[in-house]
Amino acid sequence: MTEFHVRTKKKIERRDITDLVVAAARALGVSSGAILVSVPHTTAAITVGENYDPDVTTDLERAWAKWVPDVPFDHEEGNSAAHFLSEAIGTSRLVPVDDGEPKLGRWQGIFLVELDGPRERTIEVTALTGSENGKRKTGNE
Amino acid sequence: MTEFHVRTKKKIERRDITDLVVAAARALGVSSGAILVSVPHTTAAITVGENYDPDVTTDLERAWAKWVPDVPFDHEEGNSAAHFLSEAIGTSRLVPVDDGEPKLGRWQGIFLVELDGPRERTIEVTALTGSENGKRKTGNE
Amino acid sequence: MTEFHVRTKKKIERRDITDLVVAAARALGVSSGAILVSVPHTTAAITVGENYDPDVTTDLERAWAKWVPDVPFDHEEGNSAAHFLSEAIGTSRLVPVDDGEPKLGRWQGIFLVELDGPRERTIEVTALTGSENGKRKTGNE
Repeated sequence: MTEFHVRTKKKIERRDITDLVVAAARALGVSSGAILVSVPHTTAAITVGENYDPDVTTDLERAWAKWVPDVPFDHEEGNSAAHFLSEAIGTSRLVPVDDGEPKLGRWQGIFLVELDGPRERTIEVTALTGSENGKRKTGNE
Repeated sequence: MTEFHVRTKKKIERRDITDLVVAAARALGVSSGAILVSVPHTTAAITVGENYDPDVTTDLERAWAKWVPDVPFDHEEGNSAAHFLSEAIGTSRLVPVDDGEPKLGRWQGIFLVELDGPRERTIEVTALTGSENGKRKTGNE
Repeated sequence: MTEFHVRTKKKIERRDITDLVVAAARALGVSSGAILVSVPHTTAAITVGENYDPDVTTDLERAWAKWVPDVPFDHEEGNSAAHFLSEAIGTSRLVPVDDGEPKLGRWQGIFLVELDGPRERTIEVTALTGSENGKRKTGNE
């Protein structure tokens, strides 16, 4: 496992961390399997999504802010909405790895979703091993 | 890793891909661990859920269509709602594997969630290796 | 893989299962990689989130109950809302493991999310192996 840090700037922020994750995955040296991208936080999330048009980022930030149901919250810190979204969206995502490279689709990127910023955030990258049986059965033997 | 393709027919479509995933998992030959089912797309998702009553499929398709918050979207392609749902629901799911078989619950199936169809979609299946320590400790020694 | 059982008490219930999962992970003996926590059910989910203030639990239970879009449901069992939330939140989560211990953040716990209780629920814990290459490259050589 390895980790890196990102300082967010907004209350709700969709931050592209693709290049940082790919560099971490290469440093870990996984050849086939998957990388687990996770945060040890309770008011942030990880997603995989469109990373071509910057308008998608502001569209999604706007939508997340309005996605929380209008119910009374008792938690005194006042950030139950952030806890709700973190838990619902999820604090981790998996990306398949093939031939030593994270296999993202043409338009896919990996994002840190800040839900109660601005803050310093930690992103953990863990390499998971692919099945050796699988490698053999799909090979040229 | 292996992959297969599905042609969707509707704008929002919950398509059962359980049999195709199970066949792919068997071809990969994983004995214990998990299979990662993922899409390289930004307007589709993968879920695990009820696969007995077809009414659940139409109920969920109807609910997903209304789940996106009513906020202005700037992305000019007009499919920000699909990007939002893809990223929120998630582009992958994991299914545990035991004794060479994906271990789904009695009522569970694996679904491709089309959010901006109809389109040709790719589903990737990656075998992840279970812990050898775990196998030994839970064995008969 | 190993499993344990929990009896829920409410219709919608966020139940802390952190200690049970950590004990299961230790019994499996994984040294590095991740543990997959999953349910074989279609009206329950697994999350990772804040486990310090009990008010967060009641806040989130209240929010989940109101999160389902107001659309007509045809499924005759009447629990389409539970199927919807189970599939959207997700029936599994991954927690990274380092040096033999599940690596949760300071405020993070692992939760069973009951969505159609009260019921007896099964939680499956699967150990996934970390990359050996990664272990070597980040070591002291």
